[in-house]
Amino acid sequence: MPTPTLEDVARHAGVSTATVSRAINTPDRVQEQTRLRVEAAIKTLSYTPNFGGQALASRRTNTVGAVIPTMDNAIFGQALQVLEESLAREGVTLLVATSQYNREREEAQVRALVGRGVDGLILIGAERPPAIYDMLDQRELPYVILWVSSGEGRHVTIGFDNDAAARMVVQRVYDAGHRKIAMIVGVNAGNDRAMKRAEGARKMCAELGLPALRIVESSYTLEAGEYAAQQILSNGERPTAIICGNDVLAAGAIFAARKLGLDVPRDLSIVGFDDIDLARVTLPPLTTVRVPHRRMGRTAARHILDWIRSDQRPDSVVYDAEWVERQSLAPPAM
Amino acid sequence: MPTPTLEDVARHAGVSTATVSRAINTPDRVQEQTRLRVEAAIKTLSYTPNFGGQALASRRTNTVGAVIPTMDNAIFGQALQVLEESLAREGVTLLVATSQYNREREEAQVRALVGRGVDGLILIGAERPPAIYDMLDQRELPYVILWVSSGEGRHVTIGFDNDAAARMVVQRVYDAGHRKIAMIVGVNAGNDRAMKRAEGARKMCAELGLPALRIVESSYTLEAGEYAAQQILSNGERPTAIICGNDVLAAGAIFAARKLGLDVPRDLSIVGFDDIDLARVTLPPLTTVRVPHRRMGRTAARHILDWIRSDQRPDSVVYDAEWVERQSLAPPAM
Repeated sequence: MPTPTLEDVARHAGVSTATVSRAINTPDRVQEQTRLRVEAAIKTLSYTPNFGGQALASRRTNTVGAVIPTMDNAIFGQALQVLEESLAREGVTLLVATSQYNREREEAQVRALVGRGVDGLILIGAERPPAIYDMLDQRELPYVILWVSSGEGRHVTIGFDNDAAARMVVQRVYDAGHRKIAMIVGVNAGNDRAMKRAEGARKMCAELGLPALRIVESSYTLEAGEYAAQQILSNGERPTAIICGNDVLAAGAIFAARKLGLDVPRDLSIVGFDDIDLARVTLPPLTTVRVPHRRMGRTAARHILDWIRSDQRPDSVVYDAEWVERQSLAPPAM
Repeated sequence: MPTPTLEDVARHAGVSTATVSRAINTPDRVQEQTRLRVEAAIKTLSYTPNFGGQALASRRTNTVGAVIPTMDNAIFGQALQVLEESLAREGVTLLVATSQYNREREEAQVRALVGRGVDGLILIGAERPPAIYDMLDQRELPYVILWVSSGEGRHVTIGFDNDAAARMVVQRVYDAGHRKIAMIVGVNAGNDRAMKRAEGARKMCAELGLPALRIVESSYTLEAGEYAAQQILSNGERPTAIICGNDVLAAGAIFAARKLGLDVPRDLSIVGFDDIDLARVTLPPLTTVRVPHRRMGRTAARHILDWIRSDQRPDSVVYDAEWVERQSLAPPAM
């Protein structure tokens, strides 16, 4: 059975191909009855618009692509959930690829999505090979970058200031009385958010007159977080507080403390980042930083659609990351 | 600047368009040097193959689509992570859409992915409108269904027996001495996995001569799980064990127990399902069922690629779900 064409749909619905095009691309410009007839024909024939062809009046595919680093952390999942919901309400389908923090793979995925004809793109973090941005610019493809606050004028960003958030954490830990602080962060290479958090914390420690911050890079798994904390707690002078680059690392650090017989927060304070479900489930529940993930998702949907529809580049947006006090941070024991 | 064509790439690389096609679609059939020249031309021109066109020898796009219910549960995220890795090693890009357990949206997403020209599809669960299967069959598009064990001969499934897994849980809870058991399951509508788990548990209780199992349906969030458990524990005869449809619900149930001053597992046993990170982080750590999510992801990649490349429909695969004993199940207090 040959693939049904736009012409087949038009014949079946008894309308012109131009009308089918309009019914698909600008349904509000077509009479209700006509639209329903076209929709019925599309269903009957199992027709899927082939947007690669020249047949349609509009080149829009009503799909938006997103490339995220991983699905293995609820923080991206929840942000994309909101993004997906918001786009779906406007009849736009979100297609997601995950790069596993691998730049070459991200590049291949962006090319694949562009090749599939997406109308716009959502990316996480601003640091990537210039070739990707060159391609997007050449094609004049709208794209929006989440999770960071500085596109340096070149990009539209919807995010928060990772550097400032990390500074806030150090300040709060300092205010609680800690002077011996260590940090576990995500692998910095290819992750500008992790890098900015490490940088912000390092500089804040210096400004507060603290000794150089001991920073351990770790992949974002429970086991890796546990291992990193165990290294920190077993070698050199033991810190009274460990700041973690995300909640998963912090949960791993709680495991490490427990195995060493340390009570959190009496013997050791631990602070997370993100505020995913996990942060409320650990014992003690994690003091952490709430990333504005749902707001980023919602605004990203609005901005990318506006840009696609109006051809007007939207402004960047910066949200605050919020301090969430639970029970894993306390003054150090005397 | 006009969109670069296959011809532009061929001219730039100094080869024929057929060679460019081959370099893209069957790179192992092209000399290394030629392939590198074509790749360089593709990068320089920012060319993305337009697979909707007639230009290419092969119609393959080297993309596979997946529609999953949600990214807001690590279990799907981790399965897709493995799927993505396995496909990427073969040069195939995975594009994912999330239906939020909404059937109409799933249908739109399947159509969008098919319209974008994916070579194959991965779906979760077998229950969906026949129109979707009809479309896939008409197009002879390879698709593989995960998370269930019975495609009733019609579908290729790679999964586990949800009914048998739920029976196993009831048997274990019964063996621990419990006779008053309640269950919190995911919303059954549009979720054949949740439905099968509820059914299996219900039937097993009957076979063991227990009173009719009290089952509460709940959406899959911590708060909803907490609320459902609170209802179960505050109304009617209090059970000594609550079986949960996933780990997130179980973590919520632990919260509810704690708020009522109940010790888990001394006063109340709680069992999860999935074995995500969360299950190890709760206090007490969850006794749960390990879903073979990574194996499903890996096998799905192999099967869908085999099917796409060989045109031979692969066999279905059934894995075991594994009982994981931690500390949230104990004999009931006397």
